[in-house]
Amino acid sequence: MKVAIIMGSKSDYPVVQKAEDILKHFNVETETRIISAHRTPKVAEEFAENAEKNGFEVIIAAAGKAAHLAGVLAATTPLPVIGIPMKSSTLDGLDSLLSVVQMPKGVPVATVAVDGAENAGILAVQILSTKYPELRQAIKDYKQKMAEDIIKLDEEFRTPDEEKVIVSDK
Amino acid sequence: MKVAIIMGSKSDYPVVQKAEDILKHFNVETETRIISAHRTPKVAEEFAENAEKNGFEVIIAAAGKAAHLAGVLAATTPLPVIGIPMKSSTLDGLDSLLSVVQMPKGVPVATVAVDGAENAGILAVQILSTKYPELRQAIKDYKQKMAEDIIKLDEEFRTPDEEKVIVSDK
Amino acid sequence: MKVAIIMGSKSDYPVVQKAEDILKHFNVETETRIISAHRTPKVAEEFAENAEKNGFEVIIAAAGKAAHLAGVLAATTPLPVIGIPMKSSTLDGLDSLLSVVQMPKGVPVATVAVDGAENAGILAVQILSTKYPELRQAIKDYKQKMAEDIIKLDEEFRTPDEEKVIVSDK
Amino acid sequence: MKVAIIMGSKSDYPVVQKAEDILKHFNVETETRIISAHRTPKVAEEFAENAEKNGFEVIIAAAGKAAHLAGVLAATTPLPVIGIPMKSSTLDGLDSLLSVVQMPKGVPVATVAVDGAENAGILAVQILSTKYPELRQAIKDYKQKMAEDIIKLDEEFRTPDEEKVIVSDK
Amino acid sequence: MKVAIIMGSKSDYPVVQKAEDILKHFNVETETRIISAHRTPKVAEEFAENAEKNGFEVIIAAAGKAAHLAGVLAATTPLPVIGIPMKSSTLDGLDSLLSVVQMPKGVPVATVAVDGAENAGILAVQILSTKYPELRQAIKDYKQKMAEDIIKLDEEFRTPDEEKVIVSDK
Amino acid sequence: MKVAIIMGSKSDYPVVQKAEDILKHFNVETETRIISAHRTPKVAEEFAENAEKNGFEVIIAAAGKAAHLAGVLAATTPLPVIGIPMKSSTLDGLDSLLSVVQMPKGVPVATVAVDGAENAGILAVQILSTKYPELRQAIKDYKQKMAEDIIKLDEEFRTPDEEKVIVSDK
Amino acid sequence: MKVAIIMGSKSDYPVVQKAEDILKHFNVETETRIISAHRTPKVAEEFAENAEKNGFEVIIAAAGKAAHLAGVLAATTPLPVIGIPMKSSTLDGLDSLLSVVQMPKGVPVATVAVDGAENAGILAVQILSTKYPELRQAIKDYKQKMAEDIIKLDEEFRTPDEEKVIVSDK
Amino acid sequence: MKVAIIMGSKSDYPVVQKAEDILKHFNVETETRIISAHRTPKVAEEFAENAEKNGFEVIIAAAGKAAHLAGVLAATTPLPVIGIPMKSSTLDGLDSLLSVVQMPKGVPVATVAVDGAENAGILAVQILSTKYPELRQAIKDYKQKMAEDIIKLDEEFRTPDEEKVIVSDK
Repeated sequence: MKVAIIMGSKSDYPVVQKAEDILKHFNVETETRIISAHRTPKVAEEFAENAEKNGFEVIIAAAGKAAHLAGVLAATTPLPVIGIPMKSSTLDGLDSLLSVVQMPKGVPVATVAVDGAENAGILAVQILSTKYPELRQAIKDYKQKMAEDIIKLDEEFRTPDEEKVIVSDK
Repeated sequence: MKVAIIMGSKSDYPVVQKAEDILKHFNVETETRIISAHRTPKVAEEFAENAEKNGFEVIIAAAGKAAHLAGVLAATTPLPVIGIPMKSSTLDGLDSLLSVVQMPKGVPVATVAVDGAENAGILAVQILSTKYPELRQAIKDYKQKMAEDIIKLDEEFRTPDEEKVIVSDK
Repeated sequence: MKVAIIMGSKSDYPVVQKAEDILKHFNVETETRIISAHRTPKVAEEFAENAEKNGFEVIIAAAGKAAHLAGVLAATTPLPVIGIPMKSSTLDGLDSLLSVVQMPKGVPVATVAVDGAENAGILAVQILSTKYPELRQAIKDYKQKMAEDIIKLDEEFRTPDEEKVIVSDK
Repeated sequence: MKVAIIMGSKSDYPVVQKAEDILKHFNVETETRIISAHRTPKVAEEFAENAEKNGFEVIIAAAGKAAHLAGVLAATTPLPVIGIPMKSSTLDGLDSLLSVVQMPKGVPVATVAVDGAENAGILAVQILSTKYPELRQAIKDYKQKMAEDIIKLDEEFRTPDEEKVIVSDK
Repeated sequence: MKVAIIMGSKSDYPVVQKAEDILKHFNVETETRIISAHRTPKVAEEFAENAEKNGFEVIIAAAGKAAHLAGVLAATTPLPVIGIPMKSSTLDGLDSLLSVVQMPKGVPVATVAVDGAENAGILAVQILSTKYPELRQAIKDYKQKMAEDIIKLDEEFRTPDEEKVIVSDK
Repeated sequence: MKVAIIMGSKSDYPVVQKAEDILKHFNVETETRIISAHRTPKVAEEFAENAEKNGFEVIIAAAGKAAHLAGVLAATTPLPVIGIPMKSSTLDGLDSLLSVVQMPKGVPVATVAVDGAENAGILAVQILSTKYPELRQAIKDYKQKMAEDIIKLDEEFRTPDEEKVIVSDK
Repeated sequence: MKVAIIMGSKSDYPVVQKAEDILKHFNVETETRIISAHRTPKVAEEFAENAEKNGFEVIIAAAGKAAHLAGVLAATTPLPVIGIPMKSSTLDGLDSLLSVVQMPKGVPVATVAVDGAENAGILAVQILSTKYPELRQAIKDYKQKMAEDIIKLDEEFRTPDEEKVIVSDK
Repeated sequence: MKVAIIMGSKSDYPVVQKAEDILKHFNVETETRIISAHRTPKVAEEFAENAEKNGFEVIIAAAGKAAHLAGVLAATTPLPVIGIPMKSSTLDGLDSLLSVVQMPKGVPVATVAVDGAENAGILAVQILSTKYPELRQAIKDYKQKMAEDIIKLDEEFRTPDEEKVIVSDK
């Protein structure tokens, strides 16, 4: 089981890396590449045409502004494509979000939140879990662990003798 | 292979039905239900807890306004959840879209366009095609047919002797 | 009289604390917890089911992005639920606001401004003041004090001999 | 127990009437008036100054565009004020929503959805139920009935022998 | 001199036709086609690769929602590409506008107003007028005529003896 | 005392006429013209250059979309310019509003609500009332009359024996 | 000639001061005060009722978020009221802008750009210039000077021997 | 071949300079000037009237907020005008974008992304390439080089032995 992670620009990597990390956590092989729908359209097309043949089962695509990358890949590949709208320097990510999610009839992109790379990774695992039962169990464990972490945070937070320290759990 | 289609209100059915139709076209069994995240939270929880056990492999959830249905189901089920933001009477669907897509870390919803029920159906098939090779082929055929239809429309449109007639292909 | 303050993430606490402070000012007991609608749905449900029995009279819920927490609690509890939409890293809080305020028919959330934790606290006191006359008087005193503070600021500001110093009163 | 319903314009009545209807359903006395924050500021002030004395326990205020009515009343009365942002002919209600919900520190307005008059009524009952136990029970019954209605709709919808008829339940 | 007009869907034609009409008015040859960036990506690519060779000097592309058509063509062709964002059934054209105009560095799309097909035609003529002096003069005449029409409308409007009749000049 | 009312298109007249009507009500002379900032820039410039000399004391300018008319006139004339953003067929007037109100430093436009022609007229009268005491009194009378009308509507509305009839007072 | 400058919060002063500065430049007397529509409604009402009597001819009101200050003053005073929407910590000033500009029929607020305090000052001078010819001339001189400054900046910018230095002229 | 680059304020230069740089890269002569549509309307008009005569073939105009500069120039010149909406301190560039792109029928502005100065430069070259074959080839080379750069970045990124270093390629 292998997931392709495509980003439109190398500068997207700090966010996109979180999808890689999640997939590694679930022992899903990843291959991350820089392919631009607008600057390397032929590479994008070749990638999309061969993605299934090359053993990928899900594609994650991250791009900003008029973010066509996910849609361009989805136009060619039969694989499910997950789109991450990247926040850009203007318009606070609304341009990216609408460019990714508002796909016309016939060619869906499974869109996650603006800069939502972790969720793109988890969604990829959920999709793969349709086929791989061990991932289904792993997702259940992940949800369980996530709940336990919040419950523990809540308990610590409510402990009166402990001094309240703000720790980011976002 | 079976997909659950959950809508928050019976009035969503005219749009949601397009997801049913697409799934029928691909010979995927569907079960469509009316479950409200806010009005029947216990039913929603029970459904989500038992969805996998009941043989569902993908869940499609359609809701409008502060559209929590997809997120509420995704919080409980390990299955992939596809969210359809429904256009409501105010704010032109922007409220629904943001309520569905902007899910916090850990619980993704695979969001399609506002009122994008057809694409929700196609995305469900693409997810299932990870497991069922016959659906992978069917998706390829569907993309092929879709392209041929546009190409034919284009040819007809360019035929000079034919009187131009506006036919909706949206 | 006791108010529950629920936040979706520990990182919300610096804002949420202002609701705590206001309620303490009015001598209303508070219990602040970290419960996530998406990551700990069962805890959220249990909390909501038992909130009335556990002596809470009002619930304040703070969450960001696709902020379902207030709505999820309001779906189950008969208590009035106040929602604080938290500003997130993208879309400037518009996603949170719409996810909290645009609740469908039957399940209201009393929504305050984005990051408006103080006002959530004051609104909780106003709701409680329906029952507790001492809070009604305290609210009147608070409004009176607030007016006097502004009037004093205005007088100082207009004093010609005094050098104008910008002091934040926001 | 008595709730004031104030609307900025008589043309708001078809929407506002739904708040009246809900309150009647819960046997809460209502008094509905037309008072404009901008055209009759003195009447608004007098109303707000005397609302408590006149036996009102909650105020519902509905207005559109730069919708100041709820805020203006909340500035003067110590009572909880519920704001209904009315959809206007331009900007799809976003102007009304932001004008009602984004209240500055110190003066909250409990805001419901754009045109959300039913929910304003239910929220008023929830607030009153803090004091009146019979309303608390009535709210529980209402939630129960609402759930049963959806469950029944769902059952009918799933009955195979019945022809599917689209009935609005929104 | 020849301009290609590409629309993503046949249903765009009633708007797109206005670009055709303008170009005919300026005696510029047009060829209008239906090519979808998402449904016929190969046709789009072939068209863009051969557009220059096939004698086109400017390309106009009209599409709605996540409107990638103009960007996809601009990624491949060296010709100037004019994008018309089409208003769609949701979000009032904002999705189309942002998807067309917010192109990343390196691949511009000359974007006109939502549904601005006439202006796309005029802009194409202005671009061609860089090369063809007769079009430069024709543009000047067009501007002159346009001004005279407004001046005449203004004069008629101000004629006191004439009954004011509202005639659309938009 | 004379006010110029300039509209960018004859189709704006049904809205703009309300400004005319208000000014007539206050016995202020008006001259309404069709001048387009983009289609008749020279006429706009001439008008603005001569407006003061021609006896105008205030200018009202109404335009839609990228609504530059008010700003273009304000760039040249020293007179106060009131801008009416006209709702257009797309984007619900937000484009017009921002194009009119967001003027850069040095050249203000006194902006009223989208399609707010009545208020443009009243604002013009208020500006003129700085100079003409009879208009100051007339504005006071107008406000008084407006309040009395609402108060009367409120009284009628509250009369129990009268059947409630919805009359538009917006 | 005297202009009142009212701000909703002392923290607005760094922006509001620019209106003061402009008015001082034109030798117009100003009185700046802190009055909150929501926290000191009685002070706001008293101010508005007496503004004309107290010698003010124009009122400038600056407030943020659900910015009712300008509207509340305009409801009572017959004087022209200029509104400055203040950018707040969330929603980037859109809430303030819509709360100020979208005033209902009958009570206009002459709205300038978000944080547009300079333009509020200039607009006040333009309004006063209706009555005071010396201000009309001063406005002309100001426009002349402003043009000359830009022309000089342009000339310096274009001087080839001079090294280009970026100086803010915004 | 010569392109005019007009900016509304000297503070726009750090962004606008990227258009200069691109044009220099393509050996296109540029002349950059500071001309304000609102502060120097006569200069803007003179520039637009003489631009063609002075040898310019394309005009690039950059302005922010209610950005009328491009539209004002396009109203007068027959040359193609490219508009760069500049991000301003409020509203994140949405005001500039809508003010530039939403031009009414008859007077197009070829709009690029918010702050998209590089693309404005490239679009100018593409327009000129209609006439100058050497620019057509240069554009092809530029696209080729751009693709090769991304491909090289992708290869480096995928080299396992190399430590991943985040280099901005945006």
